[in-house]
Amino acid sequence: MAPGFTGSPLDRVDHLRTDVEAFTALLNDWRGRVLGLEGLDPMVSPEGRLVWKSMADVSLEVELILLGLHEDKPHFVPLTDAKGGPPRSPAVWRALATMPAEDAAIYGTARSLIDWHNGHRYCGACGSTTKIFRAGWGRKCEGCHKEHFPRTDPVVIMLAEYQGKVLVGRQSAWPQGNYSALAGFLEPGESVEEAVRREIFEEAGIRCGAVRYVTSQPWPFGGSQLMMACVAEALDDQLSIDTKELEDARWVTKEEVQAALSDAPGKSFNAPPPFAIAHTLFRRWVAEI
Amino acid sequence: MAPGFTGSPLDRVDHLRTDVEAFTALLNDWRGRVLGLEGLDPMVSPEGRLVWKSMADVSLEVELILLGLHEDKPHFVPLTDAKGGPPRSPAVWRALATMPAEDAAIYGTARSLIDWHNGHRYCGACGSTTKIFRAGWGRKCEGCHKEHFPRTDPVVIMLAEYQGKVLVGRQSAWPQGNYSALAGFLEPGESVEEAVRREIFEEAGIRCGAVRYVTSQPWPFGGSQLMMACVAEALDDQLSIDTKELEDARWVTKEEVQAALSDAPGKSFNAPPPFAIAHTLFRRWVAEI
Repeated sequence: MAPGFTGSPLDRVDHLRTDVEAFTALLNDWRGRVLGLEGLDPMVSPEGRLVWKSMADVSLEVELILLGLHEDKPHFVPLTDAKGGPPRSPAVWRALATMPAEDAAIYGTARSLIDWHNGHRYCGACGSTTKIFRAGWGRKCEGCHKEHFPRTDPVVIMLAEYQGKVLVGRQSAWPQGNYSALAGFLEPGESVEEAVRREIFEEAGIRCGAVRYVTSQPWPFGGSQLMMACVAEALDDQLSIDTKELEDARWVTKEEVQAALSDAPGKSFNAPPPFAIAHTLFRRWVAEI
Repeated sequence: MAPGFTGSPLDRVDHLRTDVEAFTALLNDWRGRVLGLEGLDPMVSPEGRLVWKSMADVSLEVELILLGLHEDKPHFVPLTDAKGGPPRSPAVWRALATMPAEDAAIYGTARSLIDWHNGHRYCGACGSTTKIFRAGWGRKCEGCHKEHFPRTDPVVIMLAEYQGKVLVGRQSAWPQGNYSALAGFLEPGESVEEAVRREIFEEAGIRCGAVRYVTSQPWPFGGSQLMMACVAEALDDQLSIDTKELEDARWVTKEEVQAALSDAPGKSFNAPPPFAIAHTLFRRWVAEI
């Protein structure tokens, strides 16, 4: 199973973003499709797919971001000024979990871009207003002309492994019984491997040696994050939990992880849903890949 | 050999950054060390090490960023308003290449943080001024109170591999004969693996299948980048070069890469220096690890 929010079928056509003539032609293409949103949430069809509108449905004042081309058709998302964190409605989470992977990936990209634009309406260097450019893949400062580009925050998410068990933790705000891999933002001046070792030590007091990268996925909520999943060799299993970060952390066996991933009764903890990379990480660890 | 700019011996003491009392005590610790800078370049001792000053050498008005603790001593870098790209002086590059890895890693972290502060003196969301907080690991908006944190831009750097050869490219601005791995910024809505495949196709017209992550390193110039090095299985070797990005790209054998990494005469191209992750990537590919 591919990690969540990956697999977009859109060709990002980077070369067209800077080609004003080509971009204008795409904006005037009657076959263009515009992503349907309700605030920041995706509109979902009765079949559980994303809803696409036509160019005729969009007011002329709305700024459009070019998501890419698919089957020769330009796909856009309107730049709304709506702000917010992860979806509040369980129905939206259910829709994201059940829609085809390619739809979730397109929505994730669109959502990340909107959040980025709304967080960069002013230039961080000089405070002047910024203006959309590059077909929505940048903002340019109207004062100092600095160019700003939508990027992502790398996050490490990892299992420490010791004698056949892995370390899982939970935050106090989570539903009872839910556990996941530990995670944290990578900081300037660190490699992925160094960030993995630092986070495990900070949160659980465990020193680790070798770090093995497993896979990655984008995460479109609370900014635009690049989740990088790893397994780290723990040098011992004596936990010292940072209770500001974690309510609990414990070592679990392969059998416990398998049960957590299944619908079977009697599981010792609940694993995250399939579109979360921790789920993929658990699956890969159980399958030893 | 570890990737460049990794291996900092400093404990980042994340828990002390939010502890105002503890941070104040560190600022008043006479054993504190302050990184010596000339503009944005490192001051280098006759022995080729970083130069550390004492707290007494620093004006009271200078804002200090807590890099971390080492041997119980707090290590700071002064927040200067100097701005600039990569070092212009070959002497600085030579110094970075020859100083101990731990010194280069500390300098890289310090440099990334200074650049980040200078690019975030105003709030991107509302345009108000921001103020340093969290011991230099954040800025807080004085208008809307939004908190901003220093982060990094993920960059993929990769070798496409086909029948025992790998793809290298060069930009026209580079010294004659220099070639490296292809590279590009990861975009919102992509995994590492998807960004690798997209960049290789955009720059060289080559479609790739499986992507294997190799290693990572921070890069402190032109922002704060997280370089992630990968090898991708090319599906064919028919190049179609984007001449806006690359002046040339070609397939090279293991023997050519080995020669490029050595001081031997008769090499067919020059590889990047050891502190660049492309160098590490070439070495790992040749060693098949």
